[in-house]
Amino acid sequence: MTIILNSEEIKRCVRLDNKMISIIEEAFKSLALGKATMPPILRLDIEKYHGESDVKAAYIDGLDSYAIKVASGFFNNPKLGIPSSNGLMILLDAKTGVLKSILLDKGYLTDIRTAIAGAIAAKYLSNSDSTIVGIIGAGIQAKLQLQALTLVRKIKNVYIWARDIDKVNNYIRDMKKLNINLKACATPEEVVRQSEIIVTNTPSRSFIIKYEWLKKGMHITAVGSDAEQKNELDPLIIKNCDIYIPDCLSQTKILGELNHAILNKVVSSSNHYNELGNVILNSKLGRRRKEDITVCDLTGTGVQDTAIARETYRIAMHLNLGIKIG
Amino acid sequence: MTIILNSEEIKRCVRLDNKMISIIEEAFKSLALGKATMPPILRLDIEKYHGESDVKAAYIDGLDSYAIKVASGFFNNPKLGIPSSNGLMILLDAKTGVLKSILLDKGYLTDIRTAIAGAIAAKYLSNSDSTIVGIIGAGIQAKLQLQALTLVRKIKNVYIWARDIDKVNNYIRDMKKLNINLKACATPEEVVRQSEIIVTNTPSRSFIIKYEWLKKGMHITAVGSDAEQKNELDPLIIKNCDIYIPDCLSQTKILGELNHAILNKVVSSSNHYNELGNVILNSKLGRRRKEDITVCDLTGTGVQDTAIARETYRIAMHLNLGIKIG
Repeated sequence: MTIILNSEEIKRCVRLDNKMISIIEEAFKSLALGKATMPPILRLDIEKYHGESDVKAAYIDGLDSYAIKVASGFFNNPKLGIPSSNGLMILLDAKTGVLKSILLDKGYLTDIRTAIAGAIAAKYLSNSDSTIVGIIGAGIQAKLQLQALTLVRKIKNVYIWARDIDKVNNYIRDMKKLNINLKACATPEEVVRQSEIIVTNTPSRSFIIKYEWLKKGMHITAVGSDAEQKNELDPLIIKNCDIYIPDCLSQTKILGELNHAILNKVVSSSNHYNELGNVILNSKLGRRRKEDITVCDLTGTGVQDTAIARETYRIAMHLNLGIKIG
Repeated sequence: MTIILNSEEIKRCVRLDNKMISIIEEAFKSLALGKATMPPILRLDIEKYHGESDVKAAYIDGLDSYAIKVASGFFNNPKLGIPSSNGLMILLDAKTGVLKSILLDKGYLTDIRTAIAGAIAAKYLSNSDSTIVGIIGAGIQAKLQLQALTLVRKIKNVYIWARDIDKVNNYIRDMKKLNINLKACATPEEVVRQSEIIVTNTPSRSFIIKYEWLKKGMHITAVGSDAEQKNELDPLIIKNCDIYIPDCLSQTKILGELNHAILNKVVSSSNHYNELGNVILNSKLGRRRKEDITVCDLTGTGVQDTAIARETYRIAMHLNLGIKIG
């Protein structure tokens, strides 16, 4: 019996909260401890329509189910009046491979688990008294990242820049509900120079944040890059920061900001870096001094998908949601 | 709107027939012509439970949809009284990535497109007057391969061997419906020495068919190997046969019989071979003489999945099958 859950049902089950932080932290820990099997991402590009589908999957030792996720991005869609992102997750029984559930989340669960990863990065890497956030990009993920940050830091002021001023205005209108001071900036430099925590959330193909703008004590979470050609941070930031933490080193080497630092020959591809899960397990591997500049490079991992799909299914069963197909 | 189709509905839509041969031939042609985007297979192994999930995907230029397929094999399942194979296909709109359909086929469509590939291999590579078939293995695919062969060759006699004699007896009982003489053999050698077309359908990890058993004019289709460790044919067969044809060369090099011939250093990994699609496009690339020994190495391709998923969806829409989820 397979349970099909639609996006409205899924939204009733999981959201940005502290419980989800714990769940995603456990997923990162399992990855760092070598307790997860996570194959390389499958990516199918449909260049003609400026689209792509990514498939991620991970099994976490000892769990009774695992997820396979399909996430698509079709970047002409907004012109057609439909969202560019799309997706679903499939939950399978770990002992038999039997299909337990199909989660027709349209990308919602990916959005949530990505924002939660940003909150975890800030929780372990930013200075605990940080109150000023800089947001680059003004899409859904930029909104969720700010909301998620409020779970771990007392955010008082937010500076935001995005290419499209209409989207910035929409962002500020939407985020008013958080009771934070929000201010649009004319340039990314203006955002960066005023902030303590920076979150980048764009699909940019050339870097937006320059190393020379950074100041001591800053934390940056780079969320946007999840493909070879995407790049938000000056490679010198990766080279010169005090602590660089990838979500998954084998992924950031080819898909993240680290990829561009390697391509630009400012860091070696053989460098070792602790992953976010290592820092969760041992906070001494994160920020050591108040003045450290820390960077977290997020490409999105299959263990996060497995963790959030399992939790969604668990709650959906409890609430008796979904339709059953035999 | 996404259409969910269950396995009974899917079975009403497609089966082993000549129309499906044409559809799968077109898929192989597109692959050979470079008109398909087909990323490497994603494989997640769950060693603890002797299970695996494979994900295949392909986009064929010009088509309005593409499939992503999840196929799982959990080899302890028969002990639990459930089939080892499982799976589903997802059909997405090629212009927008929007989810058109979920085909809960439980592996049926994979079984069909694989058997059809075997029929295509025999159609283009075996001598047209072949009437005697040797079957190695007695599972579902071994049954479907024989049925599919009857679409392209006038089969009169079948010799079969499998490790499990109960499965052989079940096979013979089941295949009586084809009105062909079926005979169980005590060894694979006995099968091979009497046959004109051989189809191997096992998950064997060491080769079953020896080169010295072969005789001139024979055709072999190797269906079983779709993973690094699987191997049904003596590497010398790949080395010494007159024509070796992979379904997809980049896959058979790492997952097929060719893989083992390379590992055993009897053929070079840089050898070029025409693919099945090339032979469909130009039959001169296949068998040249009556006495040629021909081999087709099938690992299963994403283009076959996209082709059969699209056809299933087309017919299901025509028959108004499935449930709609918004």
